[in-house]
Amino acid sequence: MSKPQIKAFVFDAYGTLFDVHSVIEKCNELFPDKGEEISKVWRQKQLEYSFLRQLMGKYTTFLEITKDALYYACKEAGVELSEGNKKELIKSYLKLEHYEEVESVLKELSSFQKAIFSNGSLDMLTPLVDQSSFGHLLDEVLTVDEVKQFKPTPMSYQLVLEKLGVRREEVLFMSSNPWDIAGATSFGFYTAWINRQDKVMDELGVKPHYEYRDLNGILEHIE
Amino acid sequence: MSKPQIKAFVFDAYGTLFDVHSVIEKCNELFPDKGEEISKVWRQKQLEYSFLRQLMGKYTTFLEITKDALYYACKEAGVELSEGNKKELIKSYLKLEHYEEVESVLKELSSFQKAIFSNGSLDMLTPLVDQSSFGHLLDEVLTVDEVKQFKPTPMSYQLVLEKLGVRREEVLFMSSNPWDIAGATSFGFYTAWINRQDKVMDELGVKPHYEYRDLNGILEHIE
Repeated sequence: MSKPQIKAFVFDAYGTLFDVHSVIEKCNELFPDKGEEISKVWRQKQLEYSFLRQLMGKYTTFLEITKDALYYACKEAGVELSEGNKKELIKSYLKLEHYEEVESVLKELSSFQKAIFSNGSLDMLTPLVDQSSFGHLLDEVLTVDEVKQFKPTPMSYQLVLEKLGVRREEVLFMSSNPWDIAGATSFGFYTAWINRQDKVMDELGVKPHYEYRDLNGILEHIE
Repeated sequence: MSKPQIKAFVFDAYGTLFDVHSVIEKCNELFPDKGEEISKVWRQKQLEYSFLRQLMGKYTTFLEITKDALYYACKEAGVELSEGNKKELIKSYLKLEHYEEVESVLKELSSFQKAIFSNGSLDMLTPLVDQSSFGHLLDEVLTVDEVKQFKPTPMSYQLVLEKLGVRREEVLFMSSNPWDIAGATSFGFYTAWINRQDKVMDELGVKPHYEYRDLNGILEHIE
């Protein structure tokens, strides 16, 4: 494979830059015996509902989907979700911790375009990025909400090209989510799967161009 | 709700008419300690891959997806899938047992149109229906493969109208899958959720018109 000429480094948010584990902790705190199961189902349904609503042609914001998924997870677990607990859990999604290498990696990329591209809506992304230590290092925070097309549809990834003024093969896209990597690869981006938990890649007919344990791996593309 | 004037009774196949449990048994037989986990992940990825490929615009047949999902499930479980085991497991999908009430319910519906409408391709559906005891009671076996649009897209459900020559509100659609019920309801069918395992309905902004424990419940619509 010839070395790509990358102009823009584009990052998924949840699981890639930000650790959703702080939500798990809050779940365990509020639902001591059932926190782990609830948080697992919450995340699973959050993804599933974004896929299904896109297929059904019934888009709504990721914030609404996140609330719906939490409601389902609690109902399935047989616990009541009080308004207070709901607010607290949703709030924790706006304060997720980021992975430790994010800031130093972004600093190394100073001469390139750097953007977040997420299924999250701005009512979730803006507070999250603002409370982080690296918001000022990003050129753009892009959301699918602008086109109302969830990843992994081709129309969603198209937004990146329009907003950053680059061609597909000038983008290196990073995600920890195999389905996001499959969608972005299929669309024509160069892709780096940030495989933090040593998972198995999904069988969707495409493979990532690169695979790294954390974001430090992508620095080989600026050497 | 005024009583609908149903002309066509349309059934999802997997989980609704046919019990996927026989696959679980075969998995347990071939992978003694890991069969349950493998069969669970197999089904989960089978559904997920159909959704994701539709979103990515990378349709392939449900048979291919079923093979891909099985391959993933075995890889994740750390077991080798021999060609022999693969063939045996796929073959078991063509010989699933049906739920016990299916035949008697279909007989009661003799004066109505009756059809299967499934994400399965004909290379899976035809052998399955042929080996059952009720194939001759069905007017049509419809597959999304004809339009290359997986459920729950609106375009997939549209096929039912074209093939059966009915209007949306003349269809009662039965499925055990909450996402299928959500898609069909959103499309405009009357829907009956066959909730065999007493699950919680998904939060996708729509509810089934009816909910029954098994297919006998739908007979109230012919009285």
